[in-house]
Amino acid sequence: MRTSGACWPAPRAGSPSGKAERALTARELEPQERLDWLRLSRSEGVGPVTFYALLRRFGSAASALEALPRLSRPAIAMSRRDAEKELAAVERLGGRLVCWGEPLYPSALAAVDDAPAVLTVLGRAEMLPRLILAPMVAVVGARNASANGRRFARDLAAELGEAGIVVVSGLARGIDAAAHLGALETGSIAIVAGGVDIVYPEENRGLHEALARDGAILAEMPLGTEPQARHFPRRNRIISGIALGVVVVEAAAKSGSLITARYALEQGREVFAVPGSPLDPRSRGANDLLRNGATLTETAADVLAQLGPLLQGRPIREIASAQPRLPLAPTASLTAAIPSPSAPVSEDAALDLIIEKLSPTPVAVDELVRQCQLSAAAVATLLLELELAGRVERHPGNLVSLR
Amino acid sequence: MRTSGACWPAPRAGSPSGKAERALTARELEPQERLDWLRLSRSEGVGPVTFYALLRRFGSAASALEALPRLSRPAIAMSRRDAEKELAAVERLGGRLVCWGEPLYPSALAAVDDAPAVLTVLGRAEMLPRLILAPMVAVVGARNASANGRRFARDLAAELGEAGIVVVSGLARGIDAAAHLGALETGSIAIVAGGVDIVYPEENRGLHEALARDGAILAEMPLGTEPQARHFPRRNRIISGIALGVVVVEAAAKSGSLITARYALEQGREVFAVPGSPLDPRSRGANDLLRNGATLTETAADVLAQLGPLLQGRPIREIASAQPRLPLAPTASLTAAIPSPSAPVSEDAALDLIIEKLSPTPVAVDELVRQCQLSAAAVATLLLELELAGRVERHPGNLVSLR
Repeated sequence: MRTSGACWPAPRAGSPSGKAERALTARELEPQERLDWLRLSRSEGVGPVTFYALLRRFGSAASALEALPRLSRPAIAMSRRDAEKELAAVERLGGRLVCWGEPLYPSALAAVDDAPAVLTVLGRAEMLPRLILAPMVAVVGARNASANGRRFARDLAAELGEAGIVVVSGLARGIDAAAHLGALETGSIAIVAGGVDIVYPEENRGLHEALARDGAILAEMPLGTEPQARHFPRRNRIISGIALGVVVVEAAAKSGSLITARYALEQGREVFAVPGSPLDPRSRGANDLLRNGATLTETAADVLAQLGPLLQGRPIREIASAQPRLPLAPTASLTAAIPSPSAPVSEDAALDLIIEKLSPTPVAVDELVRQCQLSAAAVATLLLELELAGRVERHPGNLVSLR
Repeated sequence: MRTSGACWPAPRAGSPSGKAERALTARELEPQERLDWLRLSRSEGVGPVTFYALLRRFGSAASALEALPRLSRPAIAMSRRDAEKELAAVERLGGRLVCWGEPLYPSALAAVDDAPAVLTVLGRAEMLPRLILAPMVAVVGARNASANGRRFARDLAAELGEAGIVVVSGLARGIDAAAHLGALETGSIAIVAGGVDIVYPEENRGLHEALARDGAILAEMPLGTEPQARHFPRRNRIISGIALGVVVVEAAAKSGSLITARYALEQGREVFAVPGSPLDPRSRGANDLLRNGATLTETAADVLAQLGPLLQGRPIREIASAQPRLPLAPTASLTAAIPSPSAPVSEDAALDLIIEKLSPTPVAVDELVRQCQLSAAAVATLLLELELAGRVERHPGNLVSLR
């Protein structure tokens, strides 16, 4: 393990979070380091937000793994053996792991607050980082799409591909499958809810194989994970986060595509919607998006016109830092989270104090800092420990509550 | 002829034009007066804008008719005999003439700058003035509409009717016919491009008869006029002007429905559009309207929500004066157009001066006033004479040019 790799660089002024900084100084992780990232990211109770908090707190995944038993329940970490097995299995499939901040990690996704720390990738991983040369646009929609809707999605994806856009979707049946088909020759990336090796639905087996060869398949979940209902919303945040914009083609009210569109808005991405007849329930969701300000989309030209400013060769840094809203910003508050040596109270006393101030009703971390009269850094560290211990739950908007 | 009827009331402060004022003191014209209105409005070269300018300049239609031979070519006026024949023919059909400012004249239309001076009405004319009790909404669209589009228009019109809205349309085939059918029981008004007695197209004969009995048919053109291409845009301005808003259901690019929508915008009316699949060329126009800010409409509730503030029982005066833009405002500049007795130049010299300053390139009347160093009132009067002589052409934005 190289020293430089083990150290988490201090954030520079002007960067929204320490994460974004690392994207600009991208380097590949050492093999041992990647294994540590995998172990930490797969550890029980460690989601992306906690992952980055631990990394900032302890400087490296290895140090965080060492600290885990002291912080929380002893069994939390993924074993080294399991990590090695997972890595070997990925490589046997011809795939690879890409960690946040590595050169192949998608630039736009890297700017998202709860971006996956480790992605499993099958296929042409070299497509992933090309934000400028081949920016990504997501095309998503109904599983039970009409024949016209599927035709539209396929043609739109093909036109976007001809314009140099890499098309992203979710490899579901219906609109997703049509979008992948349309862009298969020019560049298509599938983000799946389960493991990259799990074909779902079965009717997409051929498309899955084609994407694993000519495109790319990405997953946050480990190999072998069967997709479950709770995985889909988390997958959807990656679809919107990896792209500059999301085009919704045929989506019923309250459908998964609308969840993707909501993530897109939260992540500061463009939302496009294809209008449809009010007599077709499959148009309800897209028409609702239009009513709420989405860009009306009839052709690829509508998408390209709206994305124009983002496609004019602006440097990655500018685009990455242009993400206007970070729905969960714990890393931002953790920027100065190195515990102050002059903390006026003992850690145990401070923990008690924080627990006393917390309730099941979410409260802003800033408010908590004021109420406890502790440094922001100290509160952030203590909250992290409580979170890892399963006592504290985080909510969007940098709110926390007692479980 | 009553003296009070012969006099055109002076505008009150705060009224956008003399026209709007009269709507608030509505009275029926005397029979002789109505005949004079008809004669003046049917006179050669006297369109609505010129009609109101003459009325303001000479105080009554009778005085304007007397002045016509002095102003321009002698043969310009409609003969009394022809006017009597037209009036008698309308009455034989069970119809009536409604003049601008009369109690039955539609309130919203009265606020439009180039509102027809005289409307011919078949059917239930008592529906026309009920802006508050039964506000009007236009539903228009493609002649070659799809079966779904026609069904949608019919259902929408029926729902609007149930909500107390009188539905206006153009009695064309397709969407127009479907809208009239849907609202036949609750209240429907057709604005036709030709005379009210001309059935067009023939397939709408039954609907024409039903509307003449249970609804109303309105026309600006005299009885017996076969509709010609140039009549339709002028008809469309009445459809938008009479209503609080226009709903466009299925309209191809560059279709007549888009002309109606443009008039609606110019007149400060709400524009509603029904989305449709980009694969259907009949959706192109409506989708374009949505792209440009029209209210997305899937149900009558969308229309009612947007019109809410206008349906809350605000007095007619407030709604009429709420028309934000008057595309042609000659009557406004003519508000003070009584010639000044201290005009420093003779009328002939002033006419020569104005002609000298004019060219085929449109110029603002205000600019002309500055250049000629005449009073605004004198310039307005002289322009009126030149207009009636066919020497001057008026353009939107109070511009004039030499023919």
